[in-house]
Amino acid sequence: MAGGGGRKVVELFFDVLSPYTWLGFEVLCRYRSIWNIDVKLRPGFLSGIIHATGNQAPAMVPKKGAYMVHDLQRLATYYQVPLKQPSDFFEVVLNKGSLSAMRFVTAIDMAHPEFVESVSRELWKRIWSTDEDITQPESLLSAAQKAGLPSEEAQKMLKMISSPEVKNRLRDSTEEALNYGAFGMPAIVAHVKGTPHLFFGCDRFELLAHLLGEKWLGPLPPVKAKSHM
Amino acid sequence: MAGGGGRKVVELFFDVLSPYTWLGFEVLCRYRSIWNIDVKLRPGFLSGIIHATGNQAPAMVPKKGAYMVHDLQRLATYYQVPLKQPSDFFEVVLNKGSLSAMRFVTAIDMAHPEFVESVSRELWKRIWSTDEDITQPESLLSAAQKAGLPSEEAQKMLKMISSPEVKNRLRDSTEEALNYGAFGMPAIVAHVKGTPHLFFGCDRFELLAHLLGEKWLGPLPPVKAKSHM
Repeated sequence: MAGGGGRKVVELFFDVLSPYTWLGFEVLCRYRSIWNIDVKLRPGFLSGIIHATGNQAPAMVPKKGAYMVHDLQRLATYYQVPLKQPSDFFEVVLNKGSLSAMRFVTAIDMAHPEFVESVSRELWKRIWSTDEDITQPESLLSAAQKAGLPSEEAQKMLKMISSPEVKNRLRDSTEEALNYGAFGMPAIVAHVKGTPHLFFGCDRFELLAHLLGEKWLGPLPPVKAKSHM
Repeated sequence: MAGGGGRKVVELFFDVLSPYTWLGFEVLCRYRSIWNIDVKLRPGFLSGIIHATGNQAPAMVPKKGAYMVHDLQRLATYYQVPLKQPSDFFEVVLNKGSLSAMRFVTAIDMAHPEFVESVSRELWKRIWSTDEDITQPESLLSAAQKAGLPSEEAQKMLKMISSPEVKNRLRDSTEEALNYGAFGMPAIVAHVKGTPHLFFGCDRFELLAHLLGEKWLGPLPPVKAKSHM
């Protein structure tokens, strides 16, 4: 898999349910204009990966859950991503989930891929920053509106989320992540000389840089292009 | 908790059963002479932490286990630590474990703390590099000998491992790690302005540096003191 102009392809399999993935997403968006890479944003379904692998959500171990709250806050501050815990983590993350949100992002990826980044960011902001719903139709439309997607287009995408095409595409990309070895998210797959290399988590960028022959400059590299936040 | 000469204290709760902890251990040993820190090596018992918290060994999820093999190899190469998988991971790590080894290190910590680093490294090399046993008395004595501990002293430490003093001390330090919030290893506790900050894993050094007001120079910082490997 080769990017345009000899650029290496780095795929990010993501779900807006995952806060660590938000951090990884922002870092990759920042480095896209610094490293010689093509970042491919791949909407996937985290719950599907967790269930298929027999993994458990880390927050199911109470001490791990408590640590994660601190760890995320520390990372978010250092990475300058405005991440905050939702008021009811179990209800919002484990019960309500992200299926319709990720189908919506998948529909956008099919019809308006140029809006995948901005709509996903708005969805992350809702669930992981301003403590707002991401399951209701009006929530999805509001995120799309903030991202600048024209209203009639957003309505079309919303209608698409119950179509077999969208459902299958989300299932297929989740399956693809599993085939690369993913057991959680973020699942970052770097293609180098025809070989895919899986990195799990938002804490392997120094290694990823090393593999790509690039330099890790920390989570806030000097800005070359316009800011994304 | 303040270190000598105004240095900040960084505690590493470790168990030679954990390969990620070996990586963290070598990084801290390298940075000890670069950052203004006192590194306190704290032998603990990983299985005790896993059981007390209801955590599961990551290798119990097959895809996670497969990923860890690659991840460890990639990290070990990048960190320049000669880590290799044992031939029978489940037998060596999950069945045989490290109880007598960590009691031996605890005895050394009580009687000859200056040998904790070198004996621990030799034990890690046995289990995680040269695929040798760490459960038999002769294995422990061999590690101690390679670390330069005089033979009659090593024999004394070996006798101590069944004493209540050693057993209690290992249990207490494991308990202490749990009280700091640990749910696995490495558990790194940095004491800054009277507050303990827990970091889990060998992938938070950039954040640790930030907290300490120091600079992360990667896993192979320019050597100031003699090499430890």
